[in-house]
Amino acid sequence: MTERAPIYDRVALIGLGLIAGSMAHAMRRGGLAGEIVGTARSAETRDIAREIGLVDRVVDSAAEAVQRADLVVLAVPVGAMEAVAEEIAPHLAPGATVTDVGSVKRAVIDAVAPHIPEGVHFVPAHPLAGTEHSGPRSGFASLFDNRWCLIVPAEGADRAAVDRLKALWQFMGSHTDEMDPDHHDLVLAVTSHAPHLIAYTMVGVADHLRRVTDSEVIKYSAAGFRDFTRIAASDPTMWRDVFLTNKEATLDILGRFTEELFVLQRAIRMGDGDMLHEYFTRTRAIRRGIIEAGQDTDAPDFGRSGGPR
Amino acid sequence: MTERAPIYDRVALIGLGLIAGSMAHAMRRGGLAGEIVGTARSAETRDIAREIGLVDRVVDSAAEAVQRADLVVLAVPVGAMEAVAEEIAPHLAPGATVTDVGSVKRAVIDAVAPHIPEGVHFVPAHPLAGTEHSGPRSGFASLFDNRWCLIVPAEGADRAAVDRLKALWQFMGSHTDEMDPDHHDLVLAVTSHAPHLIAYTMVGVADHLRRVTDSEVIKYSAAGFRDFTRIAASDPTMWRDVFLTNKEATLDILGRFTEELFVLQRAIRMGDGDMLHEYFTRTRAIRRGIIEAGQDTDAPDFGRSGGPR
Repeated sequence: MTERAPIYDRVALIGLGLIAGSMAHAMRRGGLAGEIVGTARSAETRDIAREIGLVDRVVDSAAEAVQRADLVVLAVPVGAMEAVAEEIAPHLAPGATVTDVGSVKRAVIDAVAPHIPEGVHFVPAHPLAGTEHSGPRSGFASLFDNRWCLIVPAEGADRAAVDRLKALWQFMGSHTDEMDPDHHDLVLAVTSHAPHLIAYTMVGVADHLRRVTDSEVIKYSAAGFRDFTRIAASDPTMWRDVFLTNKEATLDILGRFTEELFVLQRAIRMGDGDMLHEYFTRTRAIRRGIIEAGQDTDAPDFGRSGGPR
Repeated sequence: MTERAPIYDRVALIGLGLIAGSMAHAMRRGGLAGEIVGTARSAETRDIAREIGLVDRVVDSAAEAVQRADLVVLAVPVGAMEAVAEEIAPHLAPGATVTDVGSVKRAVIDAVAPHIPEGVHFVPAHPLAGTEHSGPRSGFASLFDNRWCLIVPAEGADRAAVDRLKALWQFMGSHTDEMDPDHHDLVLAVTSHAPHLIAYTMVGVADHLRRVTDSEVIKYSAAGFRDFTRIAASDPTMWRDVFLTNKEATLDILGRFTEELFVLQRAIRMGDGDMLHEYFTRTRAIRRGIIEAGQDTDAPDFGRSGGPR
């Protein structure tokens, strides 16, 4: 079917949400896996996956899914990783690679690494891509195109296993970089975890503000708030686990954020227009950097159609 | 050219940025104005407007622009409205309507209304639409399509003048609603002003965080931060004026936001996963409301292409 031999003969996806589903689509697009086996904890998710043919074979347990797989992908919320690692450990094939797609790396390594048997490679990873949707129907093949996937190998990790996983991510459309777990967790606290908590908070404030009705907030959301609601619609279980497992770095960034917010609030209260203008000019430059780095477009309508689908 | 007679014979646009430019495009698309005259404070902006034919006629002063206009649109930063009102007052045609497009309404009314001569109608308005771009090249005809424009007429305003302006906005693609100025300023503090300040703050924190380099923040922005940078790239002068002129409502909402953020930070610190999960589930529902209200799409890749243009 494709000109390239598959990178892995059998890939086991544990969890069938947005990321695993998108991996299935992207691996099929590129002919990257001989067979894709999938499982999920919920019977409903497994049934939907079967119905839409998300993977080649849906099985009822993680233990069954990993048998004879040369790549096992843990795609469950960070808080569920340890239980899955424990369950699959006795069933892993010698020489297999176990990876994960969790948004936090130190906590996942601490939870999973002790369960990985001798002769199996554990290569944690984190694709920096997502949408606010979740579940087995939410994946799509292009999710990882032009996005970064951070690979976080343990010290002394098998180089061939690391490079093979990197190749998979690259053929799924991503750029890859290697990073150590603590630095990863700090970078993500800045670029993802703190922004998500802030968006959740702002949407929560709007929700229980009694003087402004819900319907007004919703009707008039186009003026800025709308972008916060998209971020704040992300999967609750996943994000609960992210905050609980990247606690220190997230609280550190939120502390800096609050300090900074107080400085700007004070400038507003004191009427210090020069300070505000200078600040807003500086933040604008960062945006330019992101567009130049190809991580967003500057299409004037944000590339969105205004109307309902 | 069009089947409909123009709604206004001569429209004067004072200021030629994103909103005025988009109005010019939208009025031309609909054949809504007999002639569109424009001016801007900066000679460079006027030159660009002439070069690209943004309006029918570019003149060098606001006083000149408003002559014989039956609609005058003040499309300058809120802090510049009073000086413009003072300049144009002696030149306004009897029976003309003066409107504005400022993001704050109480301060604009206080600044402009005293200068409006007898026999001229002042009908403030606020189109809830925008992008992070600014300047004479940034406008486009569809900016207002399916967006809301809030009309904030003074007590005892001339009904015919209000309805005529409403018709203009509707033919430019907007829905319209009427609102009183103080309620407008509170609603916008929630849906726009506080979210913008929060986005500016988060981008500022990332900017001077020494342990994480700028290039990392930019490279890995796709995970949430990117949406903040888009908001934080908006016009610095416009936003300085918004915060300084809607000070009370913005500080009120920011105070509530900080309280709420502390509650969530504490839940993270204490490991209260149930509280976080419940909170994030509630905020998700608001997003659904916005999509049902047609103010955003739920396209899974946000409708953006991943690559540079």
